[in-house]
Amino acid sequence: MLNVVKIGGGVIDDEALLAQLLKDFSAIRGFKILVHGGGKLATRLCGALQIPVQMVEGRRVTDAETLKVASMVYAGWINKSIVAKLHALGCPSLGLSGADGNAIPAAKRSPVPVDYGFVGDVNPEQICTSFIQSVLEQGLAPVFSAITHDTRGSLLNSNADSVASSLAIAMSEQMPTRLIFCFEKSGVLRDPNDDTSAIPEITRELYEEYKAEGAISDGMIPKIDSAFKAIACGVKEVAIKHAKALNAGGGTTIR
Amino acid sequence: MLNVVKIGGGVIDDEALLAQLLKDFSAIRGFKILVHGGGKLATRLCGALQIPVQMVEGRRVTDAETLKVASMVYAGWINKSIVAKLHALGCPSLGLSGADGNAIPAAKRSPVPVDYGFVGDVNPEQICTSFIQSVLEQGLAPVFSAITHDTRGSLLNSNADSVASSLAIAMSEQMPTRLIFCFEKSGVLRDPNDDTSAIPEITRELYEEYKAEGAISDGMIPKIDSAFKAIACGVKEVAIKHAKALNAGGGTTIR
Repeated sequence: MLNVVKIGGGVIDDEALLAQLLKDFSAIRGFKILVHGGGKLATRLCGALQIPVQMVEGRRVTDAETLKVASMVYAGWINKSIVAKLHALGCPSLGLSGADGNAIPAAKRSPVPVDYGFVGDVNPEQICTSFIQSVLEQGLAPVFSAITHDTRGSLLNSNADSVASSLAIAMSEQMPTRLIFCFEKSGVLRDPNDDTSAIPEITRELYEEYKAEGAISDGMIPKIDSAFKAIACGVKEVAIKHAKALNAGGGTTIR
Repeated sequence: MLNVVKIGGGVIDDEALLAQLLKDFSAIRGFKILVHGGGKLATRLCGALQIPVQMVEGRRVTDAETLKVASMVYAGWINKSIVAKLHALGCPSLGLSGADGNAIPAAKRSPVPVDYGFVGDVNPEQICTSFIQSVLEQGLAPVFSAITHDTRGSLLNSNADSVASSLAIAMSEQMPTRLIFCFEKSGVLRDPNDDTSAIPEITRELYEEYKAEGAISDGMIPKIDSAFKAIACGVKEVAIKHAKALNAGGGTTIR
């Protein structure tokens, strides 16, 4: 079984939570891949460099300067810090962007109807699974940032949930694959203010109901959409859970 | 023959020169490794973030904030930009820091007599040549930034010339290896203001003479020291030449 573990920006920003997550990730036996989001450092850096941050529908608009900051923060500091920490925990790892080994080519998103700039959409069929498999077989855990490339020389900023989901879908053709989204809440919550209200299991029918009720918040919708797409495309199981409980029970399972 | 090509910060900062160099690097047949320096972006970023830049004997003192900036710029933006450009040129490549695959562990430098902070010295014997060889055998050109790690969880900032030299020494046990330092001058110059005054060949005797005369400038001394060490440790040939002439003749050869 391959475990693809995605950690959100809130985990990156919480030093103790990240340390716990990395310890638990190190303890997973067998093949594993870590995909990480960005956290607040990129926003802070854009502020310090006086680059305006534009968000549309929860996604950052990535102009040339923002792409540079995203590449620096995600593929540089965060990615390499995680790799160094995993090695110290006895978990040999290899930090990757989608450009490395052409692991994850992406398509620059059409500027119509919204121009997101240097943003890349990932197609699981384009992922270079043979390269990723060879990394796994060398006993290394790939650690992916969500920086990808267009194969024509430009880096692109991709959505980390989509990268994780696409990797899980692509790798599920090679081996049974589980996808786990870890963040700073205990799952998909019925009540966003009550961390004990995690919904244990979401089916597509329940999802539509919760969305209609407004119980599932905007930020969670792309994650759950990714999860359903992953299941439909061969991933065995998708879990959404607290980063402090990676190897424990609980959280929300999507079927 | 393995070619280890090191490009300096002046090449990184000159878009046209970098493009030419990457095109020439792509054209090299057989095994090849690129090692890149940093350029002025890290200094500019430290300025924008109001992190004071301290230099001692041509080396940056790396406090925690400077390490973060160096990791972002070197292992993030510059490294991944180069990898994306090489793929576009038909040269499959893999961007690496020394932490990735534990390729280049380093020893944090003693704080006595000068505390350089998070600076790591590289020992060729510690380099993980089996990992690097497997990358080469997959048809990928490793692209190294000079960010390393202490294997205990901390990243370190290393000297890119030393990283290149150490890689060449370590790999020369596996295969015949040539080390090429590319920068924005035509070689080691007898007269720093005359780019036609490149010294074709430097022996150790000539080196001592030039140093005594003051003909060889401070910035060049660690590069030439690295070159002599590399030759003494099994590297076949070391060249110092202009980045626009990677695959052409000229420049300075160290024997």
